[in-house]
Amino acid sequence: MDYPNDQAPGSPVRGGIPEHGRIPKYYAVKARLDLLIGELGEGETLPTERDLALRYAVSRETVRQALRELLLEGRLRRQGRGTVVAGPKLEQPLSLASYTEGVRRQGRRPGRTLIGLERFPCPAALAAEIGLERGEPVWHMERVLLADDERVGLESTYVAVARMPRLDTDFDPDSSFYSYVHERLGIDFGSADERIETVLATPREALLVGTPPALPMLLIHRVSYDTGGRATERVRTLYRGDRFSFTTRLGGDGR
Amino acid sequence: MDYPNDQAPGSPVRGGIPEHGRIPKYYAVKARLDLLIGELGEGETLPTERDLALRYAVSRETVRQALRELLLEGRLRRQGRGTVVAGPKLEQPLSLASYTEGVRRQGRRPGRTLIGLERFPCPAALAAEIGLERGEPVWHMERVLLADDERVGLESTYVAVARMPRLDTDFDPDSSFYSYVHERLGIDFGSADERIETVLATPREALLVGTPPALPMLLIHRVSYDTGGRATERVRTLYRGDRFSFTTRLGGDGR
Repeated sequence: MDYPNDQAPGSPVRGGIPEHGRIPKYYAVKARLDLLIGELGEGETLPTERDLALRYAVSRETVRQALRELLLEGRLRRQGRGTVVAGPKLEQPLSLASYTEGVRRQGRRPGRTLIGLERFPCPAALAAEIGLERGEPVWHMERVLLADDERVGLESTYVAVARMPRLDTDFDPDSSFYSYVHERLGIDFGSADERIETVLATPREALLVGTPPALPMLLIHRVSYDTGGRATERVRTLYRGDRFSFTTRLGGDGR
Repeated sequence: MDYPNDQAPGSPVRGGIPEHGRIPKYYAVKARLDLLIGELGEGETLPTERDLALRYAVSRETVRQALRELLLEGRLRRQGRGTVVAGPKLEQPLSLASYTEGVRRQGRRPGRTLIGLERFPCPAALAAEIGLERGEPVWHMERVLLADDERVGLESTYVAVARMPRLDTDFDPDSSFYSYVHERLGIDFGSADERIETVLATPREALLVGTPPALPMLLIHRVSYDTGGRATERVRTLYRGDRFSFTTRLGGDGR
């Protein structure tokens, strides 16, 4: 029996090549590199740009463009001065559980680095989102997220100072914020509204997360409610688009 | 009272500018264009590249790079030969409900254009994902997704021919697939596993959806189960990253 359509169902149809068959030269190189990546396997080093240009009889600029897309998509990663085959993207469940728990479930070690914790009068937009008064003191805590010491994201958490007056002295910023609010303040989260989009990393974000500038990122906006239904935090989390995917199980209740 | 941090909580911290203050020239232009876009409002036309280059005293190439990012992010869109301020991204709920229902809820008119419907022997990877035998006949239906006649995505649906033997003659491809399987075949979906990631549009996808090549897209992989828990379809849906965001409500059951 013949298998004319033997592609993986998650891959682009026809390998992304239009029916008219005309594709940019760099894309033809990208398709061949994609096969090479499959043969090499995770962690293996790719030939140099110069060797690839010779092998495919194209300019180094054409090779670079193909490599750039494969790097942005997380198929390859830089290591020292070379380029190696990257592992699969992390699969983080969309869940009320914390970042900490999600990363642990995948057998990786979560970490966080504090960038800043500041207290400021609540601006109007934030006040409307979490039901505070404009001008009321709020915390803004910004942390880089790590998985096995690799920087993978950047998170801003906004909460009212009135609910967590000692956040600056009581809380170890390299620990789970959700554990802190549960254990020290007796606050549990009962639900959250999330919105996911893709954005390009700003220069500041690229620097903090260690990504190429303008890398496509997954941005998750969240408002979490405590078990009493009161809005408690506004979070903006940026995840490297080349390292993360998100999973969810949709149930019969229409969610 | 002073509002030193009057940014919207969904925006990048410090407008994306690193603490050391050094940013690429194009990014400074992008930040100023971002303000201009806010002043102009949806549907308004931007000044020409030439005028913007004069106004900001930079090269046209620098203006182009800033415009390119704002187009990729969906803040601007091309209209005829001009560039206009885009509307907000669509907010599609992550839900068992169909694309049709999700788009309607936002007051927009859903549509689909059939690219192809073909029958082929099930490859191994697909067989494993939806519990079929390798070689068993499956359908692959590919459709462009529309909202108010605008092309916004591309969807591939894979289902066993045995479960829907007359898909090619019974089904109007510009209608809701979920309504068809419910009304004609008595199949209802009880749950689904989804995975979301960001990828770059391939040349074929860019052509079919009418996007710039290499636009960041949101890709949703789905396996849907009928109410009896049997895997029924494998879907790969690509949404324009500049036009879509996804929302979800996380409940107290840890989802």
